[in-house]
Amino acid sequence: MTIQLYELCGATEDHLFSPHCWKARMSLAHKGMDFTSAPVPFTKVASVENGEYRKVPVLRDGDTVIEESYEIAKYLDRTYPDKPSLFVGEGGEALTAFVISWATTQIHPAVGKLCVYDIHQSLAPADQEFFRASREKLFGCTLEEFDAKFPKNGEALEAALFPLKNLLSRQAYLGGEAPVFADYVVFGPLQWMRTTCTKDHLPQEGPVADWFNRLLDLYGGMARNAKTMG
Amino acid sequence: MTIQLYELCGATEDHLFSPHCWKARMSLAHKGMDFTSAPVPFTKVASVENGEYRKVPVLRDGDTVIEESYEIAKYLDRTYPDKPSLFVGEGGEALTAFVISWATTQIHPAVGKLCVYDIHQSLAPADQEFFRASREKLFGCTLEEFDAKFPKNGEALEAALFPLKNLLSRQAYLGGEAPVFADYVVFGPLQWMRTTCTKDHLPQEGPVADWFNRLLDLYGGMARNAKTMG
Repeated sequence: MTIQLYELCGATEDHLFSPHCWKARMSLAHKGMDFTSAPVPFTKVASVENGEYRKVPVLRDGDTVIEESYEIAKYLDRTYPDKPSLFVGEGGEALTAFVISWATTQIHPAVGKLCVYDIHQSLAPADQEFFRASREKLFGCTLEEFDAKFPKNGEALEAALFPLKNLLSRQAYLGGEAPVFADYVVFGPLQWMRTTCTKDHLPQEGPVADWFNRLLDLYGGMARNAKTMG
Repeated sequence: MTIQLYELCGATEDHLFSPHCWKARMSLAHKGMDFTSAPVPFTKVASVENGEYRKVPVLRDGDTVIEESYEIAKYLDRTYPDKPSLFVGEGGEALTAFVISWATTQIHPAVGKLCVYDIHQSLAPADQEFFRASREKLFGCTLEEFDAKFPKNGEALEAALFPLKNLLSRQAYLGGEAPVFADYVVFGPLQWMRTTCTKDHLPQEGPVADWFNRLLDLYGGMARNAKTMG
């Protein structure tokens, strides 16, 4: 039975940009597992698997359905222990929660401030409407007002990435010599930016750029070959 | 053969305040190992173990001497695998390096700005001279000028701690249900502040305060009973 991954798409099914879906996609590739992609735009997420879920990624493996990328990674490691591990032990699985907390509170907001308007522009009309309504409720202002608040340069993102840069000056991956799920946790928001931003705010050189390029090259360049808006 | 831990002390041998030495001390307690403390003030660090080292902690275990708290933790886990693990697997050991990078680039500087002058005041005269000379060279200004640059409230520290606060709203420790070395990595700089600052800048309530109090209570209240300047 093939694994099916429901993942967010933009105006076309080949525009995959969700940071959380990229974490799940990289995890499946890491474990060398065949899977079928089921791309869904924002307005179709609520109809995934008979309408039980409100967010993607959602993964179906036979009779099992798992939502949320960290849960998916844990499920994959537990269910397929003979494939390369995403955590390399219980301690790694536990500390991954800290990396997730750091990335979602430091890196996701920095990226969101740079590319939220570009994301809107890349969507189909019905999804633009959904995206605008949900984000304006969250931000308490229009998308345009939110977007205008933040300078469109990479300075805040670079500052947020400093703990990672400092680490990667001494080692190739968060996992040490090889990537683990924690690498994909930080890769996710940067690939989100890469696939949606019309302007490139990624570090162009240095340890973070080198690490990001190594991840783009993994698994036959799967992430490098993704459609971008740049 | 008893393990010996060389650790930094202030004007008296019972004033133990170094964040890195607290990481090693908590690690030894975590593994339930007997050890002898060898307190050394700043000006005696260079004479530890025949002058081979320039920083503490340094740990002697029989014929083996290890410096630096992460190396000490790795040594202890490798050498005493039957005692409670500090990493719980290779993945945990690897991701601990990210927690160290985050703590040393985000938490240590925030704490240093709050308590560097108090540290100076707590030292013996000869150590004050050493501390002032080394720190003024590092900062490029006098201790008093450095100290005057930063407001003496906990706001910057609270902002720096946010990824930890977010995580600890869902779980008891970085290690999940039980502490690991990564917990001591973040505990170290907060205990550094607690044992040196004349004013209390620690979070007084909430998930970080609860977690810090749990760590202070561990191992018979070892860290809670430490001498403070407050």
